[in-house]
Amino acid sequence: MTTAPPPTIDPETSVTYADVEAAALRLAGNAHPTPVLTSNTVNQRTGSQVFFKCENFQRAGAFKFRGAYNALAQLSDAQKRQGVIAFSSGNHAQAIALAGQILHIPTTIVMPSDAPSVKQTATRDYGAEVILYDRLTTQREALAQQIAHDRHLTLIPPYDHPYIIAGQGTATKELIEAVGALDFLLVCCGGGGLLSGSAIAAHALAPNCQVIGVEPKRADDATRSFYSRALQTVHNPDTIADGARTPSLGKYTFPLILHYVSDMVTVSESAILRSMFFLWERLKIVVEPTGALAAAALLEGVVHYPNARIGVILSGGNIDLKQAGKLLNKAQERRKKADSAPLARELS
Amino acid sequence: MTTAPPPTIDPETSVTYADVEAAALRLAGNAHPTPVLTSNTVNQRTGSQVFFKCENFQRAGAFKFRGAYNALAQLSDAQKRQGVIAFSSGNHAQAIALAGQILHIPTTIVMPSDAPSVKQTATRDYGAEVILYDRLTTQREALAQQIAHDRHLTLIPPYDHPYIIAGQGTATKELIEAVGALDFLLVCCGGGGLLSGSAIAAHALAPNCQVIGVEPKRADDATRSFYSRALQTVHNPDTIADGARTPSLGKYTFPLILHYVSDMVTVSESAILRSMFFLWERLKIVVEPTGALAAAALLEGVVHYPNARIGVILSGGNIDLKQAGKLLNKAQERRKKADSAPLARELS
Repeated sequence: MTTAPPPTIDPETSVTYADVEAAALRLAGNAHPTPVLTSNTVNQRTGSQVFFKCENFQRAGAFKFRGAYNALAQLSDAQKRQGVIAFSSGNHAQAIALAGQILHIPTTIVMPSDAPSVKQTATRDYGAEVILYDRLTTQREALAQQIAHDRHLTLIPPYDHPYIIAGQGTATKELIEAVGALDFLLVCCGGGGLLSGSAIAAHALAPNCQVIGVEPKRADDATRSFYSRALQTVHNPDTIADGARTPSLGKYTFPLILHYVSDMVTVSESAILRSMFFLWERLKIVVEPTGALAAAALLEGVVHYPNARIGVILSGGNIDLKQAGKLLNKAQERRKKADSAPLARELS
Repeated sequence: MTTAPPPTIDPETSVTYADVEAAALRLAGNAHPTPVLTSNTVNQRTGSQVFFKCENFQRAGAFKFRGAYNALAQLSDAQKRQGVIAFSSGNHAQAIALAGQILHIPTTIVMPSDAPSVKQTATRDYGAEVILYDRLTTQREALAQQIAHDRHLTLIPPYDHPYIIAGQGTATKELIEAVGALDFLLVCCGGGGLLSGSAIAAHALAPNCQVIGVEPKRADDATRSFYSRALQTVHNPDTIADGARTPSLGKYTFPLILHYVSDMVTVSESAILRSMFFLWERLKIVVEPTGALAAAALLEGVVHYPNARIGVILSGGNIDLKQAGKLLNKAQERRKKADSAPLARELS
C-alpha cells in the first residue's frame, strides 16, 4: 500500500487579496457593512484601543453570509439552476439558505435531526429544503455527497474553499478601512476560513499587523497544527463554542494560516462564558459563545498588548433563548463560586 | 385651608428646539452618537421602514446620560464645586454619576438598600457616593432634599426639568438627521422626559411626524392623563418596565406632552417581554424591558402604520444577568403555553 502525500497548496497563490477585493464588490449591497464598536471600559482595562468588528449584526447573524454569498454568486448558470447543498447545523446552513434565497438558487441543507428546532425553522424560513439525518447512524458528509450526486447539486463546503475564504476576508477589509491600521487582530478559529481570510486582508492593508487565531482549549487542533506544522485533529470536542467544533483545518486554510498568521492561543470554557456575558452586559450586544472567543483572549489576559491598536472580530450572535438561559445559569453558578479569573472578580 | 392651582407652564416657551440644539452642542464629544439599526424581518412584518435608535449603546447604557450631562454642564461654578444629588435606583443614578465624573462634579446618589448590588457597584465605579435607605421606613425625596439642604448640594430631578428634557431630545435630533424625516416616532414614557424632548425635536425637524408615547398597561398614568387632560398617578405599579414605574408626569412634561404628542398607547407585560427577546434574538442587541416598550407597540400590532417611515427609540440596555435569567425563564414558560399573540406564534 502506498500513501500519497497531502496536496500541497501554495498559500501565496491559492487565495489572494485580489480575491478578497473581488468578493467585496460582489457583497456590496448584499452583505451588511457591520458596525465597529468601542468600549471605554475595555480600553481602560487593556491600556489599548480596541475595535470590535460586530459580525453578529451580519445578515443571518454571522460572518458566514460573506463566504456563502461569494461562493454562490460565482456558480455557473447551470449550477445555479440545479441548486446547491450544504451540511451544517449552524451558521453556515442559514448563510447558504439566505444567499440562495437572494440569488434565486435552490438550497438543500443536511442537518442532524436533533438540531435546535429554532435553527431548522430559521433555515426553512430562508427557503431551504432541510434534510434531517440521525447523528448516531449516518455520516453526514457521505449523505450530502450522495444527495449532491443524485440530484446534481453543487456541494458548498463550510470553510475550505477559496471563494469562502475570500468572502470571509471582507470583514477585516471593512474593519481596517473603517478604523485604520491595526497592530493586532484577534480572530476565532474553527476550520480556519475566517482566520485565513482575515489574515490575507490584514497582510495587504496593514502589513505590520499581527493576526492571532483563538481557539477553545478543548478544541485546540489548529493551535497544535500551527505549532507542529502538521495537521492535527479533534473529535467531537465538548466546547460551548459550537462553531469551533470542526475536526481540523483544511487543505487551503492550513497553509494559509501557517503563512499569514503570527500566533495561535487557546481560551478556557469559563473564559468564553464570562467574555460572552461581559459583551452582553457592557457592550449591550448579543454574541454567541464562538463569537466571544477572540474577545476572551484579550479580556482574560491570555494575550497582553498594551498601548496598541487591536481589532477583535465578534463572529456571530446566533444563540437562542433556551441555550442562553442554560448558559446564564452556568455563568451565575460560576460567579457564586468566586472564580479567581480577572473578569469574574470584576463582575461579581 | 386653600389649595393653589398647579403651576401652569407654557409648553411653547418652557423648552424649545433651540434648547435641544444647545444641548446637542454640549453633548458633542461627550455622549455617543448612537447607531440606528434596521431589520429586514421587521420591515417585512410591518410593511414599513423602521429605524431603531439604539440608546442602549449610549454611555452608561441609556438615554439618561444626555439629560444628566446637559443639566450638570449648566451648573454655576459654585454649584459644581459643592456637588449634586439625585435619587434613583436605575439609569438616572448611573447617568448622573458618570456625567459628574466627566465634569469633575462630586455626586451623591440616594438608593434603596435593596437595589441590585450590580447597580450600586456601577454607580460607585463612576465615583458617586451612594447613600442607602430603607424603602419601608424612609421617603426618598424627603431624604434627598434633607441631604441636599444640609450639604448644599443641587438636586437633579430625573425628568421634570428643562435641561433634562432638552438633553433627552437630542436622541431624536440625531435620528432624524441620520435617516431623514419620519411619519411616526414611537417613544417609551415614564415621567415623560424622553417623550417630551423627543416630541419637541420631531416637531422642529419633521413637522408632519406623529409622536406616539408608549406605556406599560400596568403603569398607564400618562395615557390616562393624556386622554383626561388632568394629571393622573399610579402607585408602585407592578411592571417589568422599571423605568416606567414613575408615579406621574411632571409639571413640565405634562403640558409638553399634551402640546406635542399625537397619541399614547399601552402594551402588556407579555408584549414587552416578547419584544425584548425578539430584539435580543433577531437584532442581536441587549435592551432592558423599558427599552423594548416602544418596539412592543409596533411589533405586537398595538399600532399599525403600513407604508410609513417609523422611528423607534430603544431607550436603554441595563439589565443584569440575574434579572435576564429570570425573564428568560418567564418568556420560555409563556412560549410553552402557546400564547396566541403574533410574535409568540412566529417565534415558537
